[in-house]
Amino acid sequence: MPGDPIREVRVTPVAFRDAPLLNAVGVHEPFALRAVVEVLTEDGVLGLGETYGDAVHLDRLHRAAAAIRGMDVWQVHRIARRIAALPAGGPGGDGTAGMVNAATADRVLSPFEVACLDIQGRTTGRPVTDLLGGAVRDRVEFSAYLFYKWAGHGDTEDEWGAALDPDGIVAQARRLVDEYGFGALKLKGGVFPPEEEIAAVHALRAAFPDRPLRIDPNAAWSVPTSVRVGRELAGVLEYLEDPTAGIDGMARVAREVPMPLATNMCVVAFDHLRPAVAAGAVGIVLSDHHFWGGLRRSAGLAATCETFGLGLSMHSNSHLGISLAAMTHLAAATPNLTYACDTHWPWKDPADDVVEPGVLGFTDGAVTVPTGPGLGVELDRDALARLHEQYLTCGYTTRDDTGYYRRRYPGFDPTAPRW
Amino acid sequence: MPGDPIREVRVTPVAFRDAPLLNAVGVHEPFALRAVVEVLTEDGVLGLGETYGDAVHLDRLHRAAAAIRGMDVWQVHRIARRIAALPAGGPGGDGTAGMVNAATADRVLSPFEVACLDIQGRTTGRPVTDLLGGAVRDRVEFSAYLFYKWAGHGDTEDEWGAALDPDGIVAQARRLVDEYGFGALKLKGGVFPPEEEIAAVHALRAAFPDRPLRIDPNAAWSVPTSVRVGRELAGVLEYLEDPTAGIDGMARVAREVPMPLATNMCVVAFDHLRPAVAAGAVGIVLSDHHFWGGLRRSAGLAATCETFGLGLSMHSNSHLGISLAAMTHLAAATPNLTYACDTHWPWKDPADDVVEPGVLGFTDGAVTVPTGPGLGVELDRDALARLHEQYLTCGYTTRDDTGYYRRRYPGFDPTAPRW
Repeated sequence: MPGDPIREVRVTPVAFRDAPLLNAVGVHEPFALRAVVEVLTEDGVLGLGETYGDAVHLDRLHRAAAAIRGMDVWQVHRIARRIAALPAGGPGGDGTAGMVNAATADRVLSPFEVACLDIQGRTTGRPVTDLLGGAVRDRVEFSAYLFYKWAGHGDTEDEWGAALDPDGIVAQARRLVDEYGFGALKLKGGVFPPEEEIAAVHALRAAFPDRPLRIDPNAAWSVPTSVRVGRELAGVLEYLEDPTAGIDGMARVAREVPMPLATNMCVVAFDHLRPAVAAGAVGIVLSDHHFWGGLRRSAGLAATCETFGLGLSMHSNSHLGISLAAMTHLAAATPNLTYACDTHWPWKDPADDVVEPGVLGFTDGAVTVPTGPGLGVELDRDALARLHEQYLTCGYTTRDDTGYYRRRYPGFDPTAPRW
Repeated sequence: MPGDPIREVRVTPVAFRDAPLLNAVGVHEPFALRAVVEVLTEDGVLGLGETYGDAVHLDRLHRAAAAIRGMDVWQVHRIARRIAALPAGGPGGDGTAGMVNAATADRVLSPFEVACLDIQGRTTGRPVTDLLGGAVRDRVEFSAYLFYKWAGHGDTEDEWGAALDPDGIVAQARRLVDEYGFGALKLKGGVFPPEEEIAAVHALRAAFPDRPLRIDPNAAWSVPTSVRVGRELAGVLEYLEDPTAGIDGMARVAREVPMPLATNMCVVAFDHLRPAVAAGAVGIVLSDHHFWGGLRRSAGLAATCETFGLGLSMHSNSHLGISLAAMTHLAAATPNLTYACDTHWPWKDPADDVVEPGVLGFTDGAVTVPTGPGLGVELDRDALARLHEQYLTCGYTTRDDTGYYRRRYPGFDPTAPRW
């Protein structure tokens, strides 16, 4: 069969406004960066992908884009090999032996793979779920992603205001639950001393007696602190996410706390699964197609997790609508993804997106799986141009939560474990 | 999107002539049994699958066929769930809690999943490889499957004649290599005392100095015998397949022999991987889409093997052309399937098949991957009717190598370990 050769690949960095959300290493800057990938076939079919927008990654994306021109969008394994063989370049790689390592190659591959699946779906009239074995659910549940946050960037208070204590977190959760209908609630921790964050979790439990709760301090805690917090929150947390750093540390915590540990930090590539399983470090892997090599390789991750008795949930970075569509398709077609997925969606200004509105929306905490061909979302070229212009003018080319935090607190040291 | 609903599913048992091939539990009967699955959509598109034809399995296939009528061929995950929820029935199950276990459900699912992928390929104009991420190779290499064998069934000598010693095995290998161009050579062992089979392997090495060699005694050996054979064949074998029974036994052998151990006996379902990896029991999994739940789940197995550093090869039972096509598509689209696959193909009379000839053929030991839509093979209805008639008249409804062997040697006891 003749394939669908790639005529053109465009990579467009974009910036969208973000809220001053606090985390273990600092605070979100006023703009979040992403890259929008457009793959166009000789037949004029357009596929979309979305990924990180920082400068080193962008450089790799541009080189990958050039390398896959002319290839067939159905030959994703071959596209993966082509990308993996590219010199790494940039400060992250040695420039001699492929994309630094398999994990980097997977991160670069991801948006192109998603765009190829989008095209496959568009040309065959099938939603991406169908290309992954079909949807096992018509709606994908997401969790409310709660953040400690400053009142605003600079001196201006944003519409959410500050959230710096249990009351602020509960109020934020109430609004997210009211507006989106979220079930599970996840608190980004590692910001304040553990006692304050434990108090916030207890306050959430009191305010929302039936909702699954999670806390994620991004490895800001030592092993003993993690064990202490885990024990204090016994029976309260659905899972405890990345309390401490590394597979060994996580394994030591896992043996001492009653709830499963989840991770998107110590298991972020296929190479990490074997030692993590051997050590019994984690109970739940937070998948993320942006760093696991796209949707098909994430399905392979899901099969691996099921085989080794690991639970599966989904991680999020700040993202736009192409990623939300891809996440939703993947989650819908992954039978053993049984936890509500993370998303930063509510923290994005609704006016800041690159897809036409209307397809993706939250009802009762869930996104209805698009059933149109491909990802089911359409690029809004005016919006893309606007967000690209915003990228060019915003002054950011890499993400630096720590540097931005230090403008207010110059002495801030994020070295983990902080507690 | 509207799906492609299943209008009709037909399951047709067939029998085809087989040679008296010896193995650890007896000898192949005059006929091998298979079941041909036809899935027909409302739009009149036909998809093909092939699986085992023994009576208990056939009963499950018929009930699964009835259960998936009306379902969408793109919703394979949902079809899998529907099949897994069926009562097991038959002597193999308790009839109360689904298809006995996940492994049985996967065996029942497999031919229907393959047929659904065949339909997906036919309706979209893509070969099945493309639905699995694309072919990474245009030709799939198979190994020469060498068997000790009787001269013929009953008193009639077949065209291959007897192979009961090293000279017979080397002559058989020579013919298979000459006719098919096979590279790797695999000897089915467990038939004669290990010393005789070691001699046969050494004779093969002498006759074919550069070809990868394997021996598979189907767990007929004790752990000490396996270790002894493994050490005697150091540097001679590419891998040693299932020398002894069970994950624990294999692990004990693996620690003491220099070559990797392969298996299609102690790891035959997803549940077996975790304990096998923990024990270090095997180095290579012999995948087989007939018992791993079809092509997509076999891709999940491949991802799991890659993640855990296991090699991947492919197992075979006596099969027809639908299975050969499916095996070829799967192998072509599995990047880490790097060993020549097993096949019983040469032992089948070329006149006995259910697909139209011409698409599948061996050149230099490999099958060129079909590039037409779907599996790329077409059902020959006259041949199907003939092989079904053969099934009805041959007198076999289950495979019983031991019983057939005992007609000649009544005292035969296949209890393992025999040596």
